[in-house]
Amino acid sequence: MEYRVLGNSVIKKDVADKATGKARYGADYLFPDLLIGKILRSPVAHARILKIDTSRAAALPGVKAVVTYNDTPRHRIGRWVKDRPILAWDKVRYIGEPVAAVAAVDEETAEEALGLITVEYEELPPVFGIEEAERPGAPVVHEDLAKYECESPKFHPHGNVLSESSLKKGDVEAVWKQCDVIWEDNYTTPVVHQGFIQPHETTAAMDASGKITVWTSTKAPFIVRQSVSEGLDIPMSRLRIIAATVGGDFGGKGTAQIEPICVVLTQKSGQPVRLALTREEELSFSFMRDATKSHLKIGAKKDGTLIAFQGQITYDAGAYADLADHMPSSCFLLHGPYRIPNIDITAHRVYTNNSPRGHMRAPPAPQPVFALESHLDMVARKLNMDPVEFRLHNAVEEGDLLPTGARIANPGIKETLKRTQDFLRKEQKEHPQINTGWGVASCQWGGMPITASGISRDKRNNASSAWVKINDDGTVVLITGATESGGGPITILCQIVAEVLGVDYDDVSIVASDTDGTPYEFATGGSRTTVRVGNSARLAAEDARKQLLDLAAGKLKIALGDLVVAGGRVYVRGQTQKGLSIAELASLSIDERGYPILGTGAELRRTEGASGKGEEDWLDAPMHGTHAVQVKVDPETGQVTVLKYFASHDVGFAIHPQNVEGQIEGAVSAGLGYALYEEVVIDKGRSLNPNLSDYRMPTTSDIVPVQMETVEIPSRTGPFGAKGIGEPPIIPVAPAIANAIYDAVGVRLTRLPMTAERVFLGIKEKRG
Amino acid sequence: MEYRVLGNSVIKKDVADKATGKARYGADYLFPDLLIGKILRSPVAHARILKIDTSRAAALPGVKAVVTYNDTPRHRIGRWVKDRPILAWDKVRYIGEPVAAVAAVDEETAEEALGLITVEYEELPPVFGIEEAERPGAPVVHEDLAKYECESPKFHPHGNVLSESSLKKGDVEAVWKQCDVIWEDNYTTPVVHQGFIQPHETTAAMDASGKITVWTSTKAPFIVRQSVSEGLDIPMSRLRIIAATVGGDFGGKGTAQIEPICVVLTQKSGQPVRLALTREEELSFSFMRDATKSHLKIGAKKDGTLIAFQGQITYDAGAYADLADHMPSSCFLLHGPYRIPNIDITAHRVYTNNSPRGHMRAPPAPQPVFALESHLDMVARKLNMDPVEFRLHNAVEEGDLLPTGARIANPGIKETLKRTQDFLRKEQKEHPQINTGWGVASCQWGGMPITASGISRDKRNNASSAWVKINDDGTVVLITGATESGGGPITILCQIVAEVLGVDYDDVSIVASDTDGTPYEFATGGSRTTVRVGNSARLAAEDARKQLLDLAAGKLKIALGDLVVAGGRVYVRGQTQKGLSIAELASLSIDERGYPILGTGAELRRTEGASGKGEEDWLDAPMHGTHAVQVKVDPETGQVTVLKYFASHDVGFAIHPQNVEGQIEGAVSAGLGYALYEEVVIDKGRSLNPNLSDYRMPTTSDIVPVQMETVEIPSRTGPFGAKGIGEPPIIPVAPAIANAIYDAVGVRLTRLPMTAERVFLGIKEKRG
Repeated sequence: MEYRVLGNSVIKKDVADKATGKARYGADYLFPDLLIGKILRSPVAHARILKIDTSRAAALPGVKAVVTYNDTPRHRIGRWVKDRPILAWDKVRYIGEPVAAVAAVDEETAEEALGLITVEYEELPPVFGIEEAERPGAPVVHEDLAKYECESPKFHPHGNVLSESSLKKGDVEAVWKQCDVIWEDNYTTPVVHQGFIQPHETTAAMDASGKITVWTSTKAPFIVRQSVSEGLDIPMSRLRIIAATVGGDFGGKGTAQIEPICVVLTQKSGQPVRLALTREEELSFSFMRDATKSHLKIGAKKDGTLIAFQGQITYDAGAYADLADHMPSSCFLLHGPYRIPNIDITAHRVYTNNSPRGHMRAPPAPQPVFALESHLDMVARKLNMDPVEFRLHNAVEEGDLLPTGARIANPGIKETLKRTQDFLRKEQKEHPQINTGWGVASCQWGGMPITASGISRDKRNNASSAWVKINDDGTVVLITGATESGGGPITILCQIVAEVLGVDYDDVSIVASDTDGTPYEFATGGSRTTVRVGNSARLAAEDARKQLLDLAAGKLKIALGDLVVAGGRVYVRGQTQKGLSIAELASLSIDERGYPILGTGAELRRTEGASGKGEEDWLDAPMHGTHAVQVKVDPETGQVTVLKYFASHDVGFAIHPQNVEGQIEGAVSAGLGYALYEEVVIDKGRSLNPNLSDYRMPTTSDIVPVQMETVEIPSRTGPFGAKGIGEPPIIPVAPAIANAIYDAVGVRLTRLPMTAERVFLGIKEKRG
Repeated sequence: MEYRVLGNSVIKKDVADKATGKARYGADYLFPDLLIGKILRSPVAHARILKIDTSRAAALPGVKAVVTYNDTPRHRIGRWVKDRPILAWDKVRYIGEPVAAVAAVDEETAEEALGLITVEYEELPPVFGIEEAERPGAPVVHEDLAKYECESPKFHPHGNVLSESSLKKGDVEAVWKQCDVIWEDNYTTPVVHQGFIQPHETTAAMDASGKITVWTSTKAPFIVRQSVSEGLDIPMSRLRIIAATVGGDFGGKGTAQIEPICVVLTQKSGQPVRLALTREEELSFSFMRDATKSHLKIGAKKDGTLIAFQGQITYDAGAYADLADHMPSSCFLLHGPYRIPNIDITAHRVYTNNSPRGHMRAPPAPQPVFALESHLDMVARKLNMDPVEFRLHNAVEEGDLLPTGARIANPGIKETLKRTQDFLRKEQKEHPQINTGWGVASCQWGGMPITASGISRDKRNNASSAWVKINDDGTVVLITGATESGGGPITILCQIVAEVLGVDYDDVSIVASDTDGTPYEFATGGSRTTVRVGNSARLAAEDARKQLLDLAAGKLKIALGDLVVAGGRVYVRGQTQKGLSIAELASLSIDERGYPILGTGAELRRTEGASGKGEEDWLDAPMHGTHAVQVKVDPETGQVTVLKYFASHDVGFAIHPQNVEGQIEGAVSAGLGYALYEEVVIDKGRSLNPNLSDYRMPTTSDIVPVQMETVEIPSRTGPFGAKGIGEPPIIPVAPAIANAIYDAVGVRLTRLPMTAERVFLGIKEKRG
């Protein structure tokens, strides 16, 4: 199929404003009477609140509002489980939990006011470690957990265990003895920050009737609206959330973090309030990637066939869970895109007195996949098999029945492995250098059918809807709740609309991310925007196209089937002259019917490929990729240098190839940080390195060029065959590097990040 | 029919923000790099432009843009006839015509820069008077007039006559001899300003991709978009017009006046620009109510039956016409709501070198109706008939064939006359005081069927469309292109939506007046918003309601007909408990179908009651009213004091009674100004009183309480029977007062305003 707009790397809709500094972020909304908000946070990890005295703060000149839980209803909010107070009222559960907030005429006054608030705490024993939290008799973080509202009908929390899930098939215990090779190990991953440049920023203003508008750098305005509405008892007709430009999301800007507090400050002061986190707050208290501990035991036959898989992974939820439960997905991710007849996998999420953990690019995949793909590397080595051959031998194929109960459709895993094999064959012709090595890892992203999950994800997880309006000059407006979170979705949606309607890409403008003015959209996330929102935009454009055709058929007295939509016109096939321009048809609609053409489209799949009806389900188009990396290790310092990086991903169809490249490059860089440098060092619930000097992210000097090979095995459900690409490329980076380090110096690192110190200690230990 | 929301004077949606100063007008949009724009205007009334030198202005520090016609395409813009350049390029045609504009860092610098621009003119003989402009050999204002684009296929301008229209029936010349009474006179009306508090204010900003957003205090964002798009060759996808709060419109804010200049300044400077008119510019150069001269000759039988009517009226268009041609309506207005078998009416609009005239409340009615209703008063007096009886005797009735070819439906004229009669019978029981008198006048507004007009009005004159979106908590968003111009339409639209959907008025929020984000709307004007936009909102709400019912019927497995929508729920008739809330149904739509409920509605009538198909047309629901006023005249000074004021209007159905009262009160006050004080005194094209000290508007001390009687003869086309009320009440004020003055002191004033000086001179002349 030849496309006119799709497949071209058009200029992205958002770049000019971002490059020139014209874009307006959450803190760029100006009002003459704008106040600055600040949050008072708990200095202790676990305590009962005895008393809060705000009187001195409220009396400070320039302070316009001081708020505590007394200024809010006592509702807990959250996307999946409603466990989080807007401002703590009974207990504080982590160092940094918001206890009060102030709005003042300037930042200095707001800071000073924070110092005038006194809070009396009765400290309680805290719990910080994953194992400790699961131990009987551990301090309980949430006493009333069982009473909390949760999306899931199967929400059975106990103690500090918020959720658990399992995936079982065959009889693992029975087949260990048939295995020729068994490998067992533990893996540990740290807390890391999403690493966006722009901290959380929100501005809220109230009109004189009490209606509140919030401009916030979020990728999920409808989720923010729901939490603020439910948390503060504000009807949705009195609350409008507009997504400001997002200065990097990477998963961190998809839930209501500071917005409800900003709204309470606005309600109380009656003035517009800006609330923004500092970098220190970001690196201490924002909802970062969760730490895990996992244990794997995998057995294979000597021909390389995997036959037994036992795995456990536990995630630290921190003090509040909020976001979607991912334990079913975690089980499936730990299992990976492989045929394994006997499995026994469990995943837990536990509360601790750490700060709440949240979403980060590809949650919760990098943690289990680090374990899985590191582990498979060891199994291959034990079998003396090439790691790519080993994966090819076990990888799933079209129609395979997955342990989730679904059959897989259009998998790209084998093709990405083959491309990697081809790449490595060329590269590995060179004689290997000392202390250098190659590592390989794959990933599978997306696809936990509801029938198998045993627990649903958020109700509205996948609802996307779009409207397409045609202006009287034939140009087009796409109206969508989706947000440009930086990954290019808005551009891709405009490409889809332009393609379907036969107009220029430049002729499509966008109204986005406004809970009043745009249709419902779950969120820009989950690598779902191109696919799901893309489908809703495609359907809306097709609906508008149908209306153009109907109008033209009526005017020209020509059968629908004989008409073509192209080049901004609708005309008779083979007779370009005989037709009407879209401008003429759009004007006709207004002049003769009184309304502009409006196409609507929606896409809903509760989970991928699942009918939810109990019959055999298909998992269509999971996103597969394989990475290969060459590293050099300095044995005297442990310093790891990445020499070459290769990534092959199945994207179904690259609607904007440059954007695909950008997603892969960016994700590999982020993965590099996760693999080698990044860790929020936490001691008794307190972040010890909450700044960008001590929290080491990759810089331009660390980044390596990525050689890419894109595979295009069309999805049957994505628009024009497209699959997602935003998240998968971050997943295999850390295990690929771990495997390369092992290849280079024979040291197996099972704890991230693989800092020079840890590599050096590993080498030292190996040398004895 | 009992309504829950309709018929109640709910708190208007816009009042809180306006009362507290929170509303954002066109000059209230803040940007860190905002520039201030200023316009350089022609000092001469008619001249060729030889040379413009902007170099010194451009070199002034702080000046960011200086623009002339060289910065624009050479397109003429306008709503009806495209005759107006954005910045003059060949000639200037009036004192004050924009020739150049600057944008600078502050107002002082912008003003200074204007002084540094030099323009060389070659002066041409100007023409200012209506009669002079029509004379053969008069200076020609537009040489290429015949080449201009115009909406009308019957656009045959000649000389300075832009348009002419006529309405003829029977044989007037043949029946003069049958008349028992014939009266003939001339009438003159002045230029007056709409009198809004807020001058025209616009802010424009351009994003880095070149897309322009304009926030402007307009009631017609789609009209502004069309003019700016056409005038500057900007595709609509690159231009977004958002209506800022309107600080008074009264007809003056419905076309692109300063917006295109503001956009050119933004394009050239690359920075946001604010452009606002000063009061002096407003009272000199903004598009004000047009002056007229008219001649009437009316004949009647001694029983009071009108049988012959000859009338001519000529309007001064000023230098540019822009807005809709009203000459067909003028003919119909001059004829009034009366049965007259023989008529010969013509109306002209002529160009002069005065500033362009525009729309003001009820254009172009007050001018001909001042003549008509003054004249009828004289005929009644000659017949010795009571003026109300006389009008009742001649007034149209249901089904009458109008001279336009349409039959009238649901006229309220007789009922308003009867109410006035009842009022006067009570009032006139008192013995009449010396130098006091009563005057009566009626009005008819709306209703020039296209079949009879001979010339169409703007193509999209009556297109209204609306969307109604239901939030997941059951609250509702009305999305409309209509603007709250101050007359309460947005409130009324929300009432209609709340009524239809069975939700609270407070649960309806609004997204309005955004050319990208809302559906097409012609404008908030012509007393059409309640009726036309109201219908589109009603239809959109009914569509949404139907979807709620369908969803509920499916879920409850109940036939549609057995379901009731009320109190925020859909339930089985007689079984309130058995049902679903709108919140549940709205959530179901998202959760199970992927999209929010969206109802759409549209209303299109090219003109009122006209099918446009040539068959007999009906003029439904013209707006009728009758006023009675008692004045006292001080014969020594000519001072006129209004003692009592009564107004009866047929509104079909008062959706918001307090708003109806407000419209009547406001219009009577404005009419009082027109009658007694207001006149832009113009000498050779120059306004001599461009300030609010010398341009005398009624103040609180001049305003009298208005006793009102509302008639409700339902319209068959308006929503719930409603008719418009925004404009009619201004129409009969001046003639009612003129008739009262005659009643008091026997002086007939045929020239507005009826200042103390003119009344005194009239008394003096009468006394000899």
